[in-house]
Amino acid sequence: MNVLIIGAVAAGMSTASKLRRLDDSIKITVLEKGRDVSYGACGLPYFLSDLIPKEKQLIARTEEQFIEQGINLLINHEALNVNHIDKTVEAMNHETGEKVLFHYDKLVIATGTSPIRLPVKGKELKGIHTLNSLEDGRNLKIALNQPNIKRIAVVGGGYIGLEVAENLVEMGKEVIVIERENRVLTKFSKLVSTITHEELLKHGVVLNLNETVTAYEGDAFVSKVITNDASYQVDLVIEAIGVRPNTKFLDNLPLERLKNGAIVTNKRMETSIKDIYAAGDCVAYYHRILKNSQSFVPLGTHANKAGRVIAENIAGLNSTFEGVIGSSVLKVFDLEIARTGLDLEEATLHNIHANRVHITAKDRAGYYPDATKIDIEIIYNEVNCQLLGAFMIGKKGVAHRINTLATAISAGMTAEDYSALDYAYAPPFSPVYDPVQVATNQIKCKK
Amino acid sequence: MNVLIIGAVAAGMSTASKLRRLDDSIKITVLEKGRDVSYGACGLPYFLSDLIPKEKQLIARTEEQFIEQGINLLINHEALNVNHIDKTVEAMNHETGEKVLFHYDKLVIATGTSPIRLPVKGKELKGIHTLNSLEDGRNLKIALNQPNIKRIAVVGGGYIGLEVAENLVEMGKEVIVIERENRVLTKFSKLVSTITHEELLKHGVVLNLNETVTAYEGDAFVSKVITNDASYQVDLVIEAIGVRPNTKFLDNLPLERLKNGAIVTNKRMETSIKDIYAAGDCVAYYHRILKNSQSFVPLGTHANKAGRVIAENIAGLNSTFEGVIGSSVLKVFDLEIARTGLDLEEATLHNIHANRVHITAKDRAGYYPDATKIDIEIIYNEVNCQLLGAFMIGKKGVAHRINTLATAISAGMTAEDYSALDYAYAPPFSPVYDPVQVATNQIKCKK
Repeated sequence: MNVLIIGAVAAGMSTASKLRRLDDSIKITVLEKGRDVSYGACGLPYFLSDLIPKEKQLIARTEEQFIEQGINLLINHEALNVNHIDKTVEAMNHETGEKVLFHYDKLVIATGTSPIRLPVKGKELKGIHTLNSLEDGRNLKIALNQPNIKRIAVVGGGYIGLEVAENLVEMGKEVIVIERENRVLTKFSKLVSTITHEELLKHGVVLNLNETVTAYEGDAFVSKVITNDASYQVDLVIEAIGVRPNTKFLDNLPLERLKNGAIVTNKRMETSIKDIYAAGDCVAYYHRILKNSQSFVPLGTHANKAGRVIAENIAGLNSTFEGVIGSSVLKVFDLEIARTGLDLEEATLHNIHANRVHITAKDRAGYYPDATKIDIEIIYNEVNCQLLGAFMIGKKGVAHRINTLATAISAGMTAEDYSALDYAYAPPFSPVYDPVQVATNQIKCKK
Repeated sequence: MNVLIIGAVAAGMSTASKLRRLDDSIKITVLEKGRDVSYGACGLPYFLSDLIPKEKQLIARTEEQFIEQGINLLINHEALNVNHIDKTVEAMNHETGEKVLFHYDKLVIATGTSPIRLPVKGKELKGIHTLNSLEDGRNLKIALNQPNIKRIAVVGGGYIGLEVAENLVEMGKEVIVIERENRVLTKFSKLVSTITHEELLKHGVVLNLNETVTAYEGDAFVSKVITNDASYQVDLVIEAIGVRPNTKFLDNLPLERLKNGAIVTNKRMETSIKDIYAAGDCVAYYHRILKNSQSFVPLGTHANKAGRVIAENIAGLNSTFEGVIGSSVLKVFDLEIARTGLDLEEATLHNIHANRVHITAKDRAGYYPDATKIDIEIIYNEVNCQLLGAFMIGKKGVAHRINTLATAISAGMTAEDYSALDYAYAPPFSPVYDPVQVATNQIKCKK
């Protein structure tokens, strides 16, 4: 059996490694268009500020380690198109400039995403960066360490934008965040955005909301960002406005995809074409609350898990990826910001009669030193009091508490079920009533 | 309706407060043998070292606040006996020395525990303390702050013993822990004990295992602890060898109790006698994994929840306390130490074919600064791979992670179910595979 994998970061290399461990007779070939493999892209913002000093720290396993494992890993090989009838992939070897044809019995697409770029005047100027790949990080880090790079515009107030903004402040840069919506972190609640705004301002980030970048100006190198409302002198720009799946090279295939190009997969991580699997940031996952395969949630955790599932299915086991519910967490300066499950809008959109409670509580016993405030919002089904989702924000005790809710939501628990859970308690870690239980206690369930 | 509550700490005052909020026509009388009400006993070890400087910080609500709420709170009133036929309680008013008779329609027993004392020679000497009540804490704090109190023996290496030992070290005391078993924290795994031993030694605690105290010596004030193996010069002794329910005054009643005196309760927190409820550290709770009412788990979380349940049932709602599973957490110097569910011995004792996995992992992404080791042990049912229990120990990321397992165990999840959960991930908080999922991934489930 001949397994061909396109893409050598999280999903691709999880598949390759797991498959090799399951079966050492299968021929495994991996095509990677760049030169970096198996790196932790989530660490890139921290690599910029030298919190993580060396890029090799981000490498989970090296090219050499994969080759030693008997995986035919070909870097600088870019897949150009797939023929699902002949079961072949044509690729460009960027080292030789030659096209090469690869045959497959099973194909795995794990091509990840590319950053969406603003299609504005001046977009070709030097000094406009993105941060999606290790290569991006390497280039950006060099650029940031040039003399006179002091004032930086971050375009986009999502996860990456804010993680980057924090690390730029740590480097002593002046940071302007430009966000076209009226709040940052639009995938979180308004309350979360408001609290995050305060935190950003407290750390000296200049926040410009409701502003759309209309042009970049400069003499070869960007020196000004023009928006609908203002203009900013800058030394460098980082765009972080979102990503799109790298699936354009599949346009000729009758492959079910979302509008943004994400490949639709079932729980076995199969695509709509026989013998073609897909995983990682280029796919749409099964959503375990909404019970459909429409969720574009490009996160490393899913890539790793889904990659393993593909390997197990190719090796003849019957394995499923049970899907996503929309859990995520990020650090913004001293805040832990997390969500899981559905928000009120998503629930309503799917015809669920949802409601929300909001409480504030201390992360630990009020009498214990350094107790800090946590805000918790819980989204629940009004009909049966089933838990649907949550937002949580605070200085401490958020990042793991959110996963107790992720567990409860996946188990189909009601608010009352959650309130009854026997949670470990000691004053340094929690109040006697866990803050999440304080929130679920507010939800009155019909018996 | 006339509701009489005996005991005014967590369970008693939770019942009283909740009941008053539910129904302002009910007459509520609370008898408290001491003078302290509604305090957070779990904070007492930290009160000793002035980490929590003032005792009023430990008071959730004051006597005055309860009285304002229309609760007839009588301190210095000790219940002497209960007549369940006449529905009366005889009490001693320690202020006047008079006996008083109280009638009840519903009685709530929330008398807590008393420390078990070593019945050894010299036990009546001064300078031998326990730490169970606020009164104990107040007396002990004064004693510890006397000049020349430098060397202290803590007898018992359980929760309280170790929390006290830590706080004594923080106060600059020399601390000797004497434990009769071959390890501390016997309610945790051997691995947890071993790691805890290292932590105690690192912080200068002298640890004497396999030693039983046989006598105290001294001239009015204790100055020497004699064990089966050695003797120790000390300035003060703190005994922390366990507690027993304060239920001796109920000996004349046909009340179902465990051998240690704990009152057996059902999920409605009813005892075996009509119109008598009980909650808090004096009861045995329903165990939701073992499905029986035999669990003596004297912890504040249960007291608060069970108290509310009693109030709801008295008020005519139909409320249940879903029970305990054995979750707990404590801080010992720089360690977070937690457990939930069954250990291997408990499972085996109840005829469950159980097994255990153990892994070590980092609490956050390995490349992120200050990543520290967590040890995780999971106990599971070998037949169906259902999760039964867990131990976890590490410097960070333990105290709340244990509650994801408490949730999963209560939901009846298998290892495979847990491994499939969508957990929030970011490098400052977790590796891309959560450590607990690394552990559950090791458990191979039959399909």
